[in-house]
Amino acid sequence: MIITIQQQTLDHIQTIEHYKQVLALLSWDTNTYAPKNSKKQLAKIQSTLATKLHLLQTNSDFRNNLELLLQEDLNELQRKIFNLHLKEFTELSSISIEDIQQFSLKKALTSTNWAIAKLNNNFQLVQDDLKEIIETKKRFANLKNPNLSPYDQLLNEYEPDILTKTIDPLFENIKSTIIPFLNQIRNVNSNLDTSFIKNPFPIEKQKILGKELLKSIGYNFESGQMGVTQHPFSAGIHSGDARLAVKYVGNNVKVGALMTLHEGGHSLYTQNINEKLVDTGLGKYTSMGFHESQSIFWEKIIGKHEEFWKIHFPFLQQHHPEVYKNVSFNQFFFALSEVKPSLTRYEADDITYPLHIIIRYEIEKELFTNEVNVKDLPEIWNAKYKNYLDIRPTNYSEGILQDIHWYSGSFGYFPSYLLGFIYAAQLREAIIKDYPNFDQLIAAGDFSTILQWQTQNIHQFGKLKSSKEILNSLNISEISERPLLEYLIQKYGRLYSTFALK
Amino acid sequence: MIITIQQQTLDHIQTIEHYKQVLALLSWDTNTYAPKNSKKQLAKIQSTLATKLHLLQTNSDFRNNLELLLQEDLNELQRKIFNLHLKEFTELSSISIEDIQQFSLKKALTSTNWAIAKLNNNFQLVQDDLKEIIETKKRFANLKNPNLSPYDQLLNEYEPDILTKTIDPLFENIKSTIIPFLNQIRNVNSNLDTSFIKNPFPIEKQKILGKELLKSIGYNFESGQMGVTQHPFSAGIHSGDARLAVKYVGNNVKVGALMTLHEGGHSLYTQNINEKLVDTGLGKYTSMGFHESQSIFWEKIIGKHEEFWKIHFPFLQQHHPEVYKNVSFNQFFFALSEVKPSLTRYEADDITYPLHIIIRYEIEKELFTNEVNVKDLPEIWNAKYKNYLDIRPTNYSEGILQDIHWYSGSFGYFPSYLLGFIYAAQLREAIIKDYPNFDQLIAAGDFSTILQWQTQNIHQFGKLKSSKEILNSLNISEISERPLLEYLIQKYGRLYSTFALK
Repeated sequence: MIITIQQQTLDHIQTIEHYKQVLALLSWDTNTYAPKNSKKQLAKIQSTLATKLHLLQTNSDFRNNLELLLQEDLNELQRKIFNLHLKEFTELSSISIEDIQQFSLKKALTSTNWAIAKLNNNFQLVQDDLKEIIETKKRFANLKNPNLSPYDQLLNEYEPDILTKTIDPLFENIKSTIIPFLNQIRNVNSNLDTSFIKNPFPIEKQKILGKELLKSIGYNFESGQMGVTQHPFSAGIHSGDARLAVKYVGNNVKVGALMTLHEGGHSLYTQNINEKLVDTGLGKYTSMGFHESQSIFWEKIIGKHEEFWKIHFPFLQQHHPEVYKNVSFNQFFFALSEVKPSLTRYEADDITYPLHIIIRYEIEKELFTNEVNVKDLPEIWNAKYKNYLDIRPTNYSEGILQDIHWYSGSFGYFPSYLLGFIYAAQLREAIIKDYPNFDQLIAAGDFSTILQWQTQNIHQFGKLKSSKEILNSLNISEISERPLLEYLIQKYGRLYSTFALK
Repeated sequence: MIITIQQQTLDHIQTIEHYKQVLALLSWDTNTYAPKNSKKQLAKIQSTLATKLHLLQTNSDFRNNLELLLQEDLNELQRKIFNLHLKEFTELSSISIEDIQQFSLKKALTSTNWAIAKLNNNFQLVQDDLKEIIETKKRFANLKNPNLSPYDQLLNEYEPDILTKTIDPLFENIKSTIIPFLNQIRNVNSNLDTSFIKNPFPIEKQKILGKELLKSIGYNFESGQMGVTQHPFSAGIHSGDARLAVKYVGNNVKVGALMTLHEGGHSLYTQNINEKLVDTGLGKYTSMGFHESQSIFWEKIIGKHEEFWKIHFPFLQQHHPEVYKNVSFNQFFFALSEVKPSLTRYEADDITYPLHIIIRYEIEKELFTNEVNVKDLPEIWNAKYKNYLDIRPTNYSEGILQDIHWYSGSFGYFPSYLLGFIYAAQLREAIIKDYPNFDQLIAAGDFSTILQWQTQNIHQFGKLKSSKEILNSLNISEISERPLLEYLIQKYGRLYSTFALK
């Protein structure tokens, strides 16, 4: 039997993808069911497999074959598959395996130290670690692509072709529109009592609600499952296995419900990628921002839609009458949507959420562009919160130590959250163009029409289309913050004028 | 840095063990939480990793290094590690990788067909598959060790150094003692009503009971977890990760409780292996029979002990008063222990259980020793059930299609169940020699003393000691069926004379 170079290369790619999938599964396990005493060994196993994966990805015969094949007459799919892996080869082989292993260790150690530091409200504990991580990230970014500034390179790893020069004007405009708008509504008083939202809501009941919500939006439980974890995530292993894990807070059903819809949105994306792409490397979300656009669409655009809760509010009243029998729909909906500056990103309302992200973006960019002393970070953070949100962290844990991202080496990631919100609003306009009765679809609980539209225009392609190609196919020329700002100001302007204390 | 051959070899072994551990984890996942639509892809991933593992195990440089090292001056631990892997090399490399892959496929296919055949009560559907599996197993056994008969080779893969000539007299004696004993007690009538045992017992409550039982016997939940599955198993991934999965039957708490103790017993073994052995290959149970001895010890010797249930029966009364408030302890204990020939192995009582195994052993041996026509198997099976248990399957599903073992290529496995029971009774005598107050330990709920004894004498060693070496260290010269027969006849003689309808 003669195996062609092309088949041999596709087989090699399949093996690479299998290793990625098993690593995703091990990461799911680590963060859900793995017993405490298994974690150290699990990390060793992951390291063995990650090293093997790296060797497969940076194999020089593989590179030669890819280059050879790319000179041939290929169809579009083949060309995209081979290009993707050649790009991966180039980036990965620019850094030595020893460097990668050492940095993995450093990141793991710093993540652990971060948890201790956060618990003890002690930034000094991780200050030097963080400094070292930033320096290493700069060095790696330069090695990967000396033609880009380090921070632009980092941005690109999450959002191809998006640079600071694209983001800066978008985020500036959002900031300068939202801050005055926030000041306008933050002092509006409502006569609706929303204190019930923090009443105890047993976790078992929250799980039942979460399952109900996921079913309703079209999450396929035969291609996924719901787990419990500390930091919510969706493990997009492949289209047949898009598990998600949620964190529940016993006295905050809002967090449980919205997080479930958020991770559900990520998982809908994965579940609806064309299964033929599974072992090619193209069977994944096209960019982090687009991945986030899908989670935010289901969490914020649908999951905070008045009509969505007109359907689901009776479920709350039926399953948790202790709290909900005396709560009106208006009270509930206002509690769900209420704008209230807080220090915590993942609990933030729709209006302040962009500001949480912009603060992190501005600090990251500064860290990688100019010389910032890491020891000054807590004060830089706190000053920005005071400036933009008019609240000020009183300790490190609520401030500079809030998120794990930087301490686990993720820089350039935060902007994806806001890019996702921006895309989501653009996609909302696009679907409304096709379905002017969008609100009625939601009112009728017809989420399958919406999901079908997403699948057809976005999900199915995986990495076959870039973010920009998807936008263009919907007659959107480029990323723009206008739809987001219009959506927010219209929605929250109306909400606050309706329920303002007259 | 110069890496010695020894270090290089130990590193290679560590990698091998990591692949085995990840495969064990994937198998756990497949059988517990993996969503339906992920299974096909999961099988492909497993195949990729299994192929890689096979290449690592049969690498010729690795073999050369092992042989080189074994000529050197080694300590006992080193010698055992290297010998184990050289043996593995020899067995695995006797069969080509293509043969192994093809047979894996055949086994997977036949397992699937078996499930369909069982559901449809149609043996003909898998008859030819089974024939092919038997022929391949014979061929492989001859390749692995031409000096042993194929069936002895298969036995050895589960229980080193145990041959048919050892088993035959043991099993013959058990059969000729138990059949008349069974006939003696099967017609004894009791005035205790045991029908309540098949009353509905909600699965959620069974889980709570199971957790309580596991806690009580010393299962460490920080090195394991309880899952739900169709075919109960314990995944002994390593000493820090001994997960178990149980099947619950809504109207049979006996199955849930005893299965939990059974898998708990397996897991206690794994959890208490010296953790220094983890990546050497020696960090596993020493033989299948010994593994089974530990599960049977906790399921049958402890879990069917009157004193054990004196502690736990109040839990049933408290958590499930609907059924248990009007049930006396004697009624419960008799229902738990009742001897009643049935067609299903995994539900069998202590007296008929050995006969279920002996039937399977006799058929397997015959299949591999003489020419048996596979199409005659259903009748051979049914005739033996009629002869030994005086009941006769009325369909294939309860008969020849009952267990998956043969259809998934496992021959030589069944005897381990009875060898385990035999060992368990021998170990019971040994612990009573050290703790003559054994019954009082159970009455006092002092299972930690028993577990400590097992850890010290059995568990900690993993594969460092063979079954025979462990027996010898307890002043037991060899495997013997006497303790089992004495235990059964004494226990069940007393039970039936106490509760016989006078």
